[in-house]
Amino acid sequence: MGNSFLAERFQKPMTGFALDTEALARYSDVIDLSIGDPDLITDERIINAAFADAKAGYTHYGEPKGDPELIAQVCKAWCEDYGQIITPKEVLVTASSCLGMSLALMAVLNPGDEVIVFTPYFPIYRQQIELAGGKCVEVPTYAAENFAIDGGRLRGAITERTRAIIFNNPCNPTGVAYSMADYEIIADAARTHHLLVLADEIYTAYLFEGRFVPFRTLPDMAACTVTLNSFSKNYLMTGWRVGTVIAPPEIVDAMDFINGTLVYSTPSISQRAALAALRQRKELLHECTAAFLERSAYAAERIRRIPYLDLVAPKGTFYLFPGIQKTGLTSQAFCDVLLERAHILVSPGQAFGQAGEGHFRISCTVGMETLKEAFDRMEKLF
Amino acid sequence: MGNSFLAERFQKPMTGFALDTEALARYSDVIDLSIGDPDLITDERIINAAFADAKAGYTHYGEPKGDPELIAQVCKAWCEDYGQIITPKEVLVTASSCLGMSLALMAVLNPGDEVIVFTPYFPIYRQQIELAGGKCVEVPTYAAENFAIDGGRLRGAITERTRAIIFNNPCNPTGVAYSMADYEIIADAARTHHLLVLADEIYTAYLFEGRFVPFRTLPDMAACTVTLNSFSKNYLMTGWRVGTVIAPPEIVDAMDFINGTLVYSTPSISQRAALAALRQRKELLHECTAAFLERSAYAAERIRRIPYLDLVAPKGTFYLFPGIQKTGLTSQAFCDVLLERAHILVSPGQAFGQAGEGHFRISCTVGMETLKEAFDRMEKLF
Repeated sequence: MGNSFLAERFQKPMTGFALDTEALARYSDVIDLSIGDPDLITDERIINAAFADAKAGYTHYGEPKGDPELIAQVCKAWCEDYGQIITPKEVLVTASSCLGMSLALMAVLNPGDEVIVFTPYFPIYRQQIELAGGKCVEVPTYAAENFAIDGGRLRGAITERTRAIIFNNPCNPTGVAYSMADYEIIADAARTHHLLVLADEIYTAYLFEGRFVPFRTLPDMAACTVTLNSFSKNYLMTGWRVGTVIAPPEIVDAMDFINGTLVYSTPSISQRAALAALRQRKELLHECTAAFLERSAYAAERIRRIPYLDLVAPKGTFYLFPGIQKTGLTSQAFCDVLLERAHILVSPGQAFGQAGEGHFRISCTVGMETLKEAFDRMEKLF
Repeated sequence: MGNSFLAERFQKPMTGFALDTEALARYSDVIDLSIGDPDLITDERIINAAFADAKAGYTHYGEPKGDPELIAQVCKAWCEDYGQIITPKEVLVTASSCLGMSLALMAVLNPGDEVIVFTPYFPIYRQQIELAGGKCVEVPTYAAENFAIDGGRLRGAITERTRAIIFNNPCNPTGVAYSMADYEIIADAARTHHLLVLADEIYTAYLFEGRFVPFRTLPDMAACTVTLNSFSKNYLMTGWRVGTVIAPPEIVDAMDFINGTLVYSTPSISQRAALAALRQRKELLHECTAAFLERSAYAAERIRRIPYLDLVAPKGTFYLFPGIQKTGLTSQAFCDVLLERAHILVSPGQAFGQAGEGHFRISCTVGMETLKEAFDRMEKLF
């Protein structure tokens, strides 16, 4: 590699967390339950609004910080939905909440700083932390404890280098929606150790019961929370790439600068689509998410009837994270068997950190008929 | 700042290169010649195609590396336009060529590595190099030399830490389209010192005469060139945020990994718009750029008749970079006077690096009537 143009850190095999197109191509009847991309098309009302705005001239850069109308609407919706006042200075629009998380990490990490993640976790967090020069520290949660946050394990992982905690709620891949007791453990750690909480809240409309409580609405937490919201899942808009960040102005300013350096601005047409979505959220959110919650409930019921699987009942998202300990297989071996013998593509638990081993992730992003077929096949596997 | 959550490098005032909205708001009749955003709306054929595709289901993530149809079309168009065969493995789609440049720099720079830029230069390069951990080394070009590349000055700037040269052609802000002699100086340096050439070629349709020659089509250069193309300027699509990168597969793979970490994928709808643009490029390119070339030619003529200004005749882009030495003012002072007394907003040359001092940049992104009014006002200034 002596003649390579690549930086040293990229002169090794790299595999990101992405769709396994090679596996999909292997059989003609593969059922893909691996990727977190809702199968339904964005609502026509959103597409039409964006289209009309494009023709009216929203094909230009716009302000790098975000479309002022979208930012104003974010502030208005936040106050209406959660009773907390936020101002435009606290809002940044980004080309996905994925980018928002990267910007936040770049803004706050000095080389070698540590960021705590609860595993099983969304694996891109590790890539993002490491790309920003930080160190990813895993704090496990366990199915036997319903994936609850354990205060002792969290405190044990905090060092002088710890700068932030990533809190993904509702959680991909476990389907957990955290309790107020979990929130309090994290808030207490943030207060005691002056830590930033990076609250990845992108499945907020996917809850089986109750209303979502954003982490930043807890007492004292607005000053130390970066909230990442997205239109991708709640409004079935993954391909538009638009998210919003709510954070203290100092952090927004630094993220804005980095965003301006990396991509300059967020796609204007996508921002107009997001504005239309937010304005019609009371009608749209239920319509967008109902089918997925129905599928998740159905999938949970089917999993409970499969003897070789275990399941912590999901409380939100469209993911399920069954345990496979009874099969005696590693998660990778189980997934290989599932693909080879049942032609079902899922994600092995080990991809979601050390605490993910012994599980696999199902993403309910296919219709009920296909989901039924998948479980009929899965049932006959062992 | 002891209690700040920010990384040390961001605990200082940060100003990116962006529209001065405060200046624009100061007078009701300000003429804005400061920003490089074409004023015309994206062609309806492109918008219509994108939205037909959105309704047909292109509202999903798609492949992180880019829409396979767009990548295939990039390869086809490149061969047709430039007679050079490229394969899909050499292509990455990014959410702007701005992001493409950042990804390339992140992929190749070890901490402290040096990147050479020719100044006057697009100032975001420095931000991008520094964000990627590198050091920006300025090699000046001068109006007295028609902004030609000087081989001696280039060679004098190369050290053991030099990894890459950024070559922006046609050039923002000078309006220069480089000659084959310039190309050869850079190719020679790349060969001799094993350097990567980051060829920022986003104004390729804005040439007063001749056809554009991509840097990577020079002998041996494909193996050491990262070509950055964009739909923003050539097709008046700044707000869609889509660019394409052509590079050796090893570099594409690393950039793909970093892109997947930062933003996961490029907006799907924007990629469909880009596909439509590329398919109809023979009709569209002339229509998109003709008005701007006409304006530039007009502006050049008017500048030549203003006694206190000097001008190297532009060969491409929609920028002009007049010299103001005869006024005895610094570029910032001149721009302040121009704003206060003529209500015209332009960019001071010092923003474009050390060699930019003594100049200002005009961006011909207003209609002929407004441009005429701007020069009528400018003429009376001194």
